[in-house]
Amino acid sequence: MRKAANQSTFIGCDAPYAEAELILFGAPFDGTTSFRPGTRFGPNAIRQESFGIETYSPYQDQELTDYSICDIGDLELPFGNPRAALDKIEDWAREILLDEKRFLMLGGEHLITLAAIKAALEKHPDLVILHFDAHTDLREDYLGEKLSHASVIRRCWDLLGDNKIFSFGIRSGDKPEWDWAKEHLFLCPFDFSRLEEALDWIGKRPIYLTFDLDVIDPSEMPGTGTQEAGGMRFNEIIAMLKKLPGNQVISADINELCPSLDASGRSTALAIKLVREFSLLMLKDKKG
Amino acid sequence: MRKAANQSTFIGCDAPYAEAELILFGAPFDGTTSFRPGTRFGPNAIRQESFGIETYSPYQDQELTDYSICDIGDLELPFGNPRAALDKIEDWAREILLDEKRFLMLGGEHLITLAAIKAALEKHPDLVILHFDAHTDLREDYLGEKLSHASVIRRCWDLLGDNKIFSFGIRSGDKPEWDWAKEHLFLCPFDFSRLEEALDWIGKRPIYLTFDLDVIDPSEMPGTGTQEAGGMRFNEIIAMLKKLPGNQVISADINELCPSLDASGRSTALAIKLVREFSLLMLKDKKG
Amino acid sequence: MRKAANQSTFIGCDAPYAEAELILFGAPFDGTTSFRPGTRFGPNAIRQESFGIETYSPYQDQELTDYSICDIGDLELPFGNPRAALDKIEDWAREILLDEKRFLMLGGEHLITLAAIKAALEKHPDLVILHFDAHTDLREDYLGEKLSHASVIRRCWDLLGDNKIFSFGIRSGDKPEWDWAKEHLFLCPFDFSRLEEALDWIGKRPIYLTFDLDVIDPSEMPGTGTQEAGGMRFNEIIAMLKKLPGNQVISADINELCPSLDASGRSTALAIKLVREFSLLMLKDKKG
Amino acid sequence: MRKAANQSTFIGCDAPYAEAELILFGAPFDGTTSFRPGTRFGPNAIRQESFGIETYSPYQDQELTDYSICDIGDLELPFGNPRAALDKIEDWAREILLDEKRFLMLGGEHLITLAAIKAALEKHPDLVILHFDAHTDLREDYLGEKLSHASVIRRCWDLLGDNKIFSFGIRSGDKPEWDWAKEHLFLCPFDFSRLEEALDWIGKRPIYLTFDLDVIDPSEMPGTGTQEAGGMRFNEIIAMLKKLPGNQVISADINELCPSLDASGRSTALAIKLVREFSLLMLKDKKG
Amino acid sequence: MRKAANQSTFIGCDAPYAEAELILFGAPFDGTTSFRPGTRFGPNAIRQESFGIETYSPYQDQELTDYSICDIGDLELPFGNPRAALDKIEDWAREILLDEKRFLMLGGEHLITLAAIKAALEKHPDLVILHFDAHTDLREDYLGEKLSHASVIRRCWDLLGDNKIFSFGIRSGDKPEWDWAKEHLFLCPFDFSRLEEALDWIGKRPIYLTFDLDVIDPSEMPGTGTQEAGGMRFNEIIAMLKKLPGNQVISADINELCPSLDASGRSTALAIKLVREFSLLMLKDKKG
Amino acid sequence: MRKAANQSTFIGCDAPYAEAELILFGAPFDGTTSFRPGTRFGPNAIRQESFGIETYSPYQDQELTDYSICDIGDLELPFGNPRAALDKIEDWAREILLDEKRFLMLGGEHLITLAAIKAALEKHPDLVILHFDAHTDLREDYLGEKLSHASVIRRCWDLLGDNKIFSFGIRSGDKPEWDWAKEHLFLCPFDFSRLEEALDWIGKRPIYLTFDLDVIDPSEMPGTGTQEAGGMRFNEIIAMLKKLPGNQVISADINELCPSLDASGRSTALAIKLVREFSLLMLKDKKG
Repeated sequence: MRKAANQSTFIGCDAPYAEAELILFGAPFDGTTSFRPGTRFGPNAIRQESFGIETYSPYQDQELTDYSICDIGDLELPFGNPRAALDKIEDWAREILLDEKRFLMLGGEHLITLAAIKAALEKHPDLVILHFDAHTDLREDYLGEKLSHASVIRRCWDLLGDNKIFSFGIRSGDKPEWDWAKEHLFLCPFDFSRLEEALDWIGKRPIYLTFDLDVIDPSEMPGTGTQEAGGMRFNEIIAMLKKLPGNQVISADINELCPSLDASGRSTALAIKLVREFSLLMLKDKKG
Repeated sequence: MRKAANQSTFIGCDAPYAEAELILFGAPFDGTTSFRPGTRFGPNAIRQESFGIETYSPYQDQELTDYSICDIGDLELPFGNPRAALDKIEDWAREILLDEKRFLMLGGEHLITLAAIKAALEKHPDLVILHFDAHTDLREDYLGEKLSHASVIRRCWDLLGDNKIFSFGIRSGDKPEWDWAKEHLFLCPFDFSRLEEALDWIGKRPIYLTFDLDVIDPSEMPGTGTQEAGGMRFNEIIAMLKKLPGNQVISADINELCPSLDASGRSTALAIKLVREFSLLMLKDKKG
Repeated sequence: MRKAANQSTFIGCDAPYAEAELILFGAPFDGTTSFRPGTRFGPNAIRQESFGIETYSPYQDQELTDYSICDIGDLELPFGNPRAALDKIEDWAREILLDEKRFLMLGGEHLITLAAIKAALEKHPDLVILHFDAHTDLREDYLGEKLSHASVIRRCWDLLGDNKIFSFGIRSGDKPEWDWAKEHLFLCPFDFSRLEEALDWIGKRPIYLTFDLDVIDPSEMPGTGTQEAGGMRFNEIIAMLKKLPGNQVISADINELCPSLDASGRSTALAIKLVREFSLLMLKDKKG
Repeated sequence: MRKAANQSTFIGCDAPYAEAELILFGAPFDGTTSFRPGTRFGPNAIRQESFGIETYSPYQDQELTDYSICDIGDLELPFGNPRAALDKIEDWAREILLDEKRFLMLGGEHLITLAAIKAALEKHPDLVILHFDAHTDLREDYLGEKLSHASVIRRCWDLLGDNKIFSFGIRSGDKPEWDWAKEHLFLCPFDFSRLEEALDWIGKRPIYLTFDLDVIDPSEMPGTGTQEAGGMRFNEIIAMLKKLPGNQVISADINELCPSLDASGRSTALAIKLVREFSLLMLKDKKG
Repeated sequence: MRKAANQSTFIGCDAPYAEAELILFGAPFDGTTSFRPGTRFGPNAIRQESFGIETYSPYQDQELTDYSICDIGDLELPFGNPRAALDKIEDWAREILLDEKRFLMLGGEHLITLAAIKAALEKHPDLVILHFDAHTDLREDYLGEKLSHASVIRRCWDLLGDNKIFSFGIRSGDKPEWDWAKEHLFLCPFDFSRLEEALDWIGKRPIYLTFDLDVIDPSEMPGTGTQEAGGMRFNEIIAMLKKLPGNQVISADINELCPSLDASGRSTALAIKLVREFSLLMLKDKKG
Repeated sequence: MRKAANQSTFIGCDAPYAEAELILFGAPFDGTTSFRPGTRFGPNAIRQESFGIETYSPYQDQELTDYSICDIGDLELPFGNPRAALDKIEDWAREILLDEKRFLMLGGEHLITLAAIKAALEKHPDLVILHFDAHTDLREDYLGEKLSHASVIRRCWDLLGDNKIFSFGIRSGDKPEWDWAKEHLFLCPFDFSRLEEALDWIGKRPIYLTFDLDVIDPSEMPGTGTQEAGGMRFNEIIAMLKKLPGNQVISADINELCPSLDASGRSTALAIKLVREFSLLMLKDKKG
């Protein structure tokens, strides 16, 4: 019997786990989202719609199918229990890293990054974070809750300490967050203009890259819960990405896609291209 | 200086708290919603759009402004912590009941009912629950979580025990739920045909009424997260409501409105009419 | 040169004006709409989408193209000046009636009916109104304005006096309107149950029929600005329509379609079928 | 390595092909759709959203997971070539029937039924068709094309001849179609009132059941391309379905779901329930 | 009894009227809108959604809660009577100015500016207008109506005369409007490139600032009725705003937000940020 | 009898065919669209909404009504038969060219260009193609079909041969397409930077201009089926257009508008402005 085709992995990412260099997985969690929820549907939308793009990147002149990538699908996470959800994500992230693979995690809300950082830090104690976002995410707590999308970078700082976090594109936060940031982070507001400076500071240290899609301008990325005008353009992101040392990126995430807020579908389409581009970035230097 | 008008209460419900017989409040919580979230926006949508309806009900020939009702607004609930949210709701419900008033709570997801029941049971130990819903909501747990919209009636049963819960309109549940229900509840599947029989059983006992809007057919109520075809019509609900002994209803809730799923706005408009009709039902017998 | 086809008339209604028995025209006015405007786009939507239906009615076993109907298009009406808009509609309506033709006017908001009634009353002093609507539309004024969609039937009564207006399907109004109606109108709330009784009263007098689409249940007609749950179904409307003496209907209107509130397009599709059915109703008795 | 869960089959339908009694497959074709296309996305939407329903049917008191069903996914069909698409569907249908299995095909536009009928007729020469639809679909051709969704039942008649097709719920067609139907088909307009009569005629002959979702009222099923007011309700369909001799249904299809026309998602949810109910109908008699 | 929080003012703008330096109010009028109406819902959307932004501006390094601002809500305006609506707006504007306060009015369609200008001119006879818009708005009349959103700037010129109006970002108008403008206005088409030149001309004169949101590119501001491609970007607006002498701006308005045209909500979010930035601009120089 | 106005042509384009220099026509075909169909509704949307723009272009300082343009409407094309649809388009294109007129064809999907090119090549054997697009469209076939929107430029190359096609803005294609393009086309990826160079190559040869709207950034043009981030801006397109030798453009098309994907309507509004600008470009040099 012949088999009909079903779209159960991201396009071109159907290598067996054992052979794969890079693991894609979804973390469909939005339990602490304070405004408009729905990022739980992000990873599956990315996967389903990925068949609308090409596997070839004219930006990096690279072909996705030249690499071994395994999309293992979405984790099954409990609703209403952020702690349990984070533990489960952390377990998966740890196992992938122990298997000497890297991962690209698809959110879900930004809080999921905390779990990934915990696992990554065990393996790479000198880890730094490259953080792209419209928001500082530095609240000590949000309505009394310490585990919140609005405090995820603060929680990461709890683990890493000063001068390990490099934030770009930030254009929203309350005043105490901005003041706190100046003392504890490398903060580049509004754009990527200080990227080279940050990379100089980072040197050869391992990088975890966390990319909140709301760093992009809402005109190009309406499909995210808390849109902030004045963001970066896709072409600026591509230009930035080309400057990154992909082989130092030990894992990464792309988060906060909320498909239901964009009926045109272009937000998901853009996120898909970023999944392709970030995957190629992480893998291409290994190829040669 | 004259004052411009703002819509900060449900239409016609601006009595001072101290004088009010009935208290409206919103419980904008959807933290355990497993499919499409967004009911957190339900109570405010109801309040804002309420100015599009009349305060006079031709169904009951009653005028809302003839009664003293106070809409105290939405509770401020934490995100990502169902236990804390339920505790806060319970505190408010208890205080209102201690003040010898009744309430009509606007959800939010169905789990909020558990907090209201806890408070109501303290004051009315012989309480029974009239439950209108498309779903059994009788899971022992959902993906390991005992506090879930999908298990809220089971949690209520933990408090009340057998033969205190009367469910109507049910048309979805897994097989173990249906089997369990037959032994522990009064379950009228699909419609309201056994309402009189239930009211006979209930007699003069105090009633808490919980109304999940998905009991209504999705054609009339598309704005809810888990739509189930084959539901009840508005006119059938009005006919049912007229049979209820309003003065026995010691408090009530209307839940699971998810405005973002209905761009036409008619789901919110229907919910608003039910808030009017349920309020009048609870108050009208006291009038004479 | 061959000519490509363009959709500039309602399907099957392209007879020359001089030969036509029935004239269709649009009155794209919504200047007094108090809640959600947009009915100005109703007539053109009806025209454009009409090519999706068949010209044959299985309900009446009649074929639209067997009759001579001329769709003269939309009137060009000023914005922000209800008086001037009404005057223009009245001029057109008068001219059509003077030409010994009948018309079916497509709204636009309900206020347009007032202009049509004025013209019709000149020609038919013993006119009665058959009024299908969810709302009483009997306010003396609305926020001080006497010309309002919410007072259109009251304004018609100013012209016709008592016992000339027969209202069906009404389910919303403020208390003074309901009380006033009982003394001055034939009011059948909620449904069409008293239609035969009304037709007996009317006898052979000429009828102007005004059909506010919100008399239909919002589940079937979400595309209208002020939706009221508990309305009539399409099949009930067809059954009602079959009882009407079509040859007495000297003109009619179908109003309050707001296409932008129904992305599925089914509201417009339903309105189109009603245009077909009402046209056939008015014409079929003349045929034999 | 543990495996994360992905939604690549209809819920509860993941039996191996070899063991399955019933085969689900999608035919994502809408190449001849004349009005609003998009049914190509129907089968995948049904599959993805199926995880929102229960596998237990309270209507038939049956559990889907008690049976062996295999969802083999969507066929990969060429765009712009109806003939080639139909050939491919026919090949698959034939193979499944030769393997002594039955299928439930998910459309896609209604034209796909023609391919399934061809295959079914080879195996069951005395086949009859139970046809549920708002439209006659009996055009000899459409704008010159003989292969069209608007002529699919006529094309089936070319294969089966007179008195083999039983159509229900029909409420739209041009006059020649209605006239033609009276001579060549069993046509029950508007509803299912003559179902028993038809079943008497059919007797023990094998049945192919084709269900165009637009037979359902647009209020319950807005997500279809050509909505026709005045349709059947879900509860009426369930009541009808219970009367059918499921073991005679040798295969079936459910077609014309166009998810993009219903942002609320309830059309897809309803279609999913029908997939469950039709599957159970076809299988339950074999169980006992 | 504790009080639950309701969103009845713009975030951070709840000072008592008597103490406030700046007054926010909504003018929910769209009675002369010629294309797609709905700006009447603009001010309330801005108010409701304002709780999604921060009160701190990283652009101006200013905190909104450091100032005394009073949001007095929406004026209650009649429908279908532009003259009466304008009179009411003018009364409010005059009273605020007489109380030695400034205002930021939220539209509503652009015609509302005329009423504000009338009041402002009484107090500041040497007033000039800074006008940001995609459209000239210079028609002598529109379909015969002199009071129209399409002629508002022409009507303002009737009051102010030549060389008092400075228009920026204009990219649409009929040819006579463009020709007329060259003789009577300072017109900077397409962008803000001549802003400094205009400010030199203006000198120390008092400025009324009117900001039609359609000056922004439709990609960033789809939620407006008449979108014109080729507009300004948010970052360009911020850069422009920083050059303005805020203490000369004696009052201002932001108009033409039509929330229903942007389901993503980002248009409202952008308008909210502009309300924050314009408020801070007007107040910050007074602080020091 | 006075005549009411109907919108049956593009604004300002109602010259008689015999007198017109430029012919507009719609080719509402999307039969090979592989992802989201709906461009069949593009031309009519452009026509209907065109009454929302001005006929005067401030970009070119030209007035549309100064020229003779005839919009002959939409061709009636068969569904499900690309070959027959292309033949019909070709016949019309040929006839217009034989009448010594030029045309601007409105799509529909990109495949329609092939028919226009065939006709144009007969009249202008030295024709070159200026091609603006996000996609290479150079597949040899797509799922076995040679006639596909994804292979239209390859099919044009079959007719024209090497070095006759100049492609701009391309940012998506599979690797073989990119490799093939380097040898056979003038390909300017991502932008218009090499336009002057191309125009030098072209010299005085006649130009057919085909403009796929997805060359525009999805933030400005969400209403197209396959959106590709990183596109061109409207202002960049205007700047490019001003460099083109309009009198050499012997005919042109604007294709791939899919109105249903953009509820805000700004994609259609932008396409309309391009129709105006391209029309003026083609005609203005003839004027002097």
